[in-house]
Amino acid sequence: MRGLHLTADLHGCAAASALLSDAERLRALALRAVGAAGLAPVGELFHRFGAPGGVTGMVLLAESHLALHTWPELAAVTLDVYVCNRDADNSAAAEALLAALEAAFAPAHSERRRLVRGDVAARD
Amino acid sequence: MRGLHLTADLHGCAAASALLSDAERLRALALRAVGAAGLAPVGELFHRFGAPGGVTGMVLLAESHLALHTWPELAAVTLDVYVCNRDADNSAAAEALLAALEAAFAPAHSERRRLVRGDVAARD
Repeated sequence: MRGLHLTADLHGCAAASALLSDAERLRALALRAVGAAGLAPVGELFHRFGAPGGVTGMVLLAESHLALHTWPELAAVTLDVYVCNRDADNSAAAEALLAALEAAFAPAHSERRRLVRGDVAARD
Repeated sequence: MRGLHLTADLHGCAAASALLSDAERLRALALRAVGAAGLAPVGELFHRFGAPGGVTGMVLLAESHLALHTWPELAAVTLDVYVCNRDADNSAAAEALLAALEAAFAPAHSERRRLVRGDVAARD
């Protein structure tokens, strides 16, 4: 269960606010980025809220998950990419996925965090 | 978009390994705990992998999300509870949800982290 969890909180996104409130386009973007990173989706669910129309989306991965929340009225997005590294080191794929999504939203500022998770089991 | 993201990596879970590989029971447990914490689910998706039968589940919340990954062969579970605090401070509900799920899995050890997210927007 050892893994890497990357978070990024994006502010001042230059991406069109229409993208940030379009669940179908966000779903397509997320699945395309997951595939390009070489990760394996096993399911996904996207939900659009009422006005101002933020979207919450998640892609379940064989390696763990991707989560995405948008606030079109704030030009803001938060991203989570969590990969398990049990059978292979998926860290580079996680970094590539996060970078691709960040690039799509074109934030003025991104606050990133990096959590190494599950280390106790790795020491067992 | 200011919010609180709690993670917990649970090791040595005393909960039956049958629970850790039962997507339907985990879904019911998660939704019950979300409701008891006063959070608002807007969708959920649970996936069971092949042998040894780990489960990945996510509950989309009006407040952000809950994610859960199980490794029955390791008696291990990881939890994520992420709540946005834009319209109200949902921190106590997030703590209550995490505590309820931890209690259900009865870990020998829990490695917790607490991320305050989206502060830049809060300062705008």
